[in-house]
Amino acid sequence: MASVDNIILFGDSITEVSWQAGGLGFLLADAYRRKLDVLNRGFGGYNTEWALPIFEQVIPKKDEQAHLPTTRLVVIWFGANDAALPGSPQHVPLERYKANLATMVSMLRDPSSEWYHAPERTKILLVTPPPIEEKAIAHVLATVFNPPQPLDRQFDNTKLYAEAVKAVGAEHDVPVIDMWSAIWDAAGQNVEALGQFLPDGLHLNAAGYKHAFDLIVDAIAKNWPELKHSDVKQVYPHWSNIDKANPRLSLRAQKLP
Amino acid sequence: MASVDNIILFGDSITEVSWQAGGLGFLLADAYRRKLDVLNRGFGGYNTEWALPIFEQVIPKKDEQAHLPTTRLVVIWFGANDAALPGSPQHVPLERYKANLATMVSMLRDPSSEWYHAPERTKILLVTPPPIEEKAIAHVLATVFNPPQPLDRQFDNTKLYAEAVKAVGAEHDVPVIDMWSAIWDAAGQNVEALGQFLPDGLHLNAAGYKHAFDLIVDAIAKNWPELKHSDVKQVYPHWSNIDKANPRLSLRAQKLP
Repeated sequence: MASVDNIILFGDSITEVSWQAGGLGFLLADAYRRKLDVLNRGFGGYNTEWALPIFEQVIPKKDEQAHLPTTRLVVIWFGANDAALPGSPQHVPLERYKANLATMVSMLRDPSSEWYHAPERTKILLVTPPPIEEKAIAHVLATVFNPPQPLDRQFDNTKLYAEAVKAVGAEHDVPVIDMWSAIWDAAGQNVEALGQFLPDGLHLNAAGYKHAFDLIVDAIAKNWPELKHSDVKQVYPHWSNIDKANPRLSLRAQKLP
Repeated sequence: MASVDNIILFGDSITEVSWQAGGLGFLLADAYRRKLDVLNRGFGGYNTEWALPIFEQVIPKKDEQAHLPTTRLVVIWFGANDAALPGSPQHVPLERYKANLATMVSMLRDPSSEWYHAPERTKILLVTPPPIEEKAIAHVLATVFNPPQPLDRQFDNTKLYAEAVKAVGAEHDVPVIDMWSAIWDAAGQNVEALGQFLPDGLHLNAAGYKHAFDLIVDAIAKNWPELKHSDVKQVYPHWSNIDKANPRLSLRAQKLP
């Protein structure tokens, strides 16, 4: 069972629904096919405050790691809900959001943590929330919800949360995928054009996820080339390389580099 | 880590490439999103003879199970390569193929096996190989391979391997997904129409995988309704049901039913 290592995607609905065609989970699962499992730990609606007790449960503890596949990468992607405005049950104050992200990083990186993962084996990426498009969100809240709900997120506020992720990354030396800027720039810094990537104003479509995938691939290539999907070896040999006279000998799982 | 159970898809290339949009892995991963992990253990080109040593490594042993997520379902899908004709390195004689499938079932079901999985917790499905379309396979072998290769599979022979899976399933009381008949019937029992589902004569496209998914969903509903994707509970509560005053209390992983 320990023969296939994994990548954990930890986040909110943007992660949860990313098994869809063209979604981040879908793209990574296919890119790492027969190389690493991609575990979707996305929880729609969750903010970092609610995510922390779950992080404790989905990240293997030190004393469990010997029995489990190695987690090679943890992608932490929250903020779309934390950035809900004060008054919303999803709202998490900016400083608390930063502290929660820093806690997740420390849980993985602090050798005294129960959830410590050796940094040479387990990499971390932080991802910023994408921008939001207020009009589309307002439309959903006014028409899909009963009773209709007022707008609970603001473009400028979500931008602050995106910037906060960059600050946490810089402080803790963790690479940051700046999805806020990627989508904002791809939309030509034009609010009206955000709908190309965020059909409901909050969630990414395949065109949006493509940016997340490309940025993650680039960050891996730059920081940890041994983890590039093109360079990670397939588990078990190609069938043409099996020793046909003595297959069992050639059919052992490779060890980690 | 043990908070999310899983489904293991064990098979050949038809399983390996099924992370593609509309593929079996893709459809199951999305259907069981936030409910069960779908682990793709597909190995292109492999027959049951080479798969057995890998089965031993990817199926948790008895003494490992306490530390690992519970495997709720193992889907075993081989035969497309075993049914290669004698002389091909992939060929496995029919009786040996049946014995190998039966060995996999016994490894999971025999209480004395190192890989024993309690049947009330771990279900098994066997899947037959789909039909093949000789002309398309011959075309690939003659044009893609260098030097060109002669046709190495026959429609009637693969049918025998599909029937063998049904015999093994009947003998060991394991439900069988009859993909051979499903695709053959969907093609109007017309060889010329098989290309709708098997573009290269051997591998399924999304239209073909849809039959596998639907048949697996039906088999689960019939045999183990508690495992229906619509009925399995999401891990962790919907965010609106989190106890906002005391979130940690409500954020514990559910136990298995």
